[in-house]
Amino acid sequence: MPAITGRARLFAVLGDPVRQVRAPELLNPVFAELGLDAVLVPVHAPVAHLAEVVRGLQRAGNVDGLLVTVPHKARARDFAEVHSDAVRLAGSTNALRREADGHWYAENFDGTGFVAGLVAAGHPPAGKQVTLVGAGGAGGAIAAALVLAGVARLNVVDVDRARVRTLLDRLSEHAGGRVSEGTPPAGDSADVVVNATPLGLRADDPLPFAPGRLAPGTVVADIIMSPRETRLLRTAAAHGLPVHHGEHMLTHQLQLYRDFFGLRRRPGTEQPACADHTGPLTRPDRTAYD
Amino acid sequence: MPAITGRARLFAVLGDPVRQVRAPELLNPVFAELGLDAVLVPVHAPVAHLAEVVRGLQRAGNVDGLLVTVPHKARARDFAEVHSDAVRLAGSTNALRREADGHWYAENFDGTGFVAGLVAAGHPPAGKQVTLVGAGGAGGAIAAALVLAGVARLNVVDVDRARVRTLLDRLSEHAGGRVSEGTPPAGDSADVVVNATPLGLRADDPLPFAPGRLAPGTVVADIIMSPRETRLLRTAAAHGLPVHHGEHMLTHQLQLYRDFFGLRRRPGTEQPACADHTGPLTRPDRTAYD
Repeated sequence: MPAITGRARLFAVLGDPVRQVRAPELLNPVFAELGLDAVLVPVHAPVAHLAEVVRGLQRAGNVDGLLVTVPHKARARDFAEVHSDAVRLAGSTNALRREADGHWYAENFDGTGFVAGLVAAGHPPAGKQVTLVGAGGAGGAIAAALVLAGVARLNVVDVDRARVRTLLDRLSEHAGGRVSEGTPPAGDSADVVVNATPLGLRADDPLPFAPGRLAPGTVVADIIMSPRETRLLRTAAAHGLPVHHGEHMLTHQLQLYRDFFGLRRRPGTEQPACADHTGPLTRPDRTAYD
Repeated sequence: MPAITGRARLFAVLGDPVRQVRAPELLNPVFAELGLDAVLVPVHAPVAHLAEVVRGLQRAGNVDGLLVTVPHKARARDFAEVHSDAVRLAGSTNALRREADGHWYAENFDGTGFVAGLVAAGHPPAGKQVTLVGAGGAGGAIAAALVLAGVARLNVVDVDRARVRTLLDRLSEHAGGRVSEGTPPAGDSADVVVNATPLGLRADDPLPFAPGRLAPGTVVADIIMSPRETRLLRTAAAHGLPVHHGEHMLTHQLQLYRDFFGLRRRPGTEQPACADHTGPLTRPDRTAYD
């Protein structure tokens, strides 16, 4: 990556732990490609000190944005004055940016990234019946994005029924009668069934639901990225069902981040950059504030 | 520079403004050369929010050190539990590191860097008579380092006599009768005369003192780095006096920072590094704390 100068704009990804994050390796090459003097660094924000770490970064004049990962996605809402619809519906945020007037705006791309991946794979969820298994943080974000994308019906399944009710309460603002607590997917109850539980991270995890009981043509989607071929997806494929891999959720978030942070090529850097970029980020929707 | 991963150790340089700092361009190549997954970023810490910014960074589990530049060098002492002799004598710090037990230790390399530069140039100040013109932040740091380096006598000159007295009060702990308020340098009153005022930054600045009145062989040192050839140094050279450039102060700080932060080559990275370094920094005098 290019040299970091004193004029660099800063972005941080916050987690506890943070060592597993991939965002710096994904976004710093984007900055370089666009000729921007900007850098994304991992920041280990312990749960006990999240507020101090975030407020400190927000007070720094050259910090433009924050990405947030577990376990901070719900609490990070408190550090933005304005929330997107997806954040309000999901109850969590994974990206905050400073606006031109200095306030902070929170967005959630976990669900939007998932939906963008579905659309790109030829499975647009608008007007469809979707069953979502798992109403935790990721499930909530995906549920919110599916509602905002116009699903005809969303059934949410979780062994923790209180968690389902909390999520449905949040979703009801936008979703009207389109969302409800469902039962484990079977038959022709859905066009798309999504696993948003952690089941599948380990090889000996039980299946979150039984693909063999689904109607032909039901799309089986997983949000687990590693392993790529979860036991759920392997079983679904063995039953002849179309599958959708977890990695799509991440790959489609990258373009969403570019748009969200207004990352555009710096004028005069048509060639990929390799040193000494000193301009501020260019964002048509705000002025420089440093 | 190599890719930044989720395991990167963080260093920040704080200033207001911060765009002029050179530390990222100097230290990041050192991290790369040593195969360390570490990065130094500029952080614009507004005066009004210094405490919040510093405390936030100190709460982050992967922040190992902070460099401090104007106008924060005096106040930054408050963010370290332990101060070096140089910090106590100078009344300011420009480098803080987290120790193995979690406390913060403050050092000041402005003066030490200057003294190291003098030594390397063949003008060791130990046992010498030195006149220092300028008792501000940089002058105080240089005075402290000269005292700790064992000057025989240090005369401090400043138009602001209250500032001289405050500095002499701090120095008296270590300096005993070796320091005093002096008069503008002339004749054979000194072996080395140092300009630590801002005079010389602009081409039309008056001289801080008259080199033509110094005895032959008196070393004239400037701490102004840009322009390299200040009017003072050009005038001194025209009078046949040996001169010492401001840049030495910075170039010698780099090695001091390496030692201070315990930067050592990561085992197994004998070749200059170019990607994906995931080890913690190696420091024999502390344990990993992340």
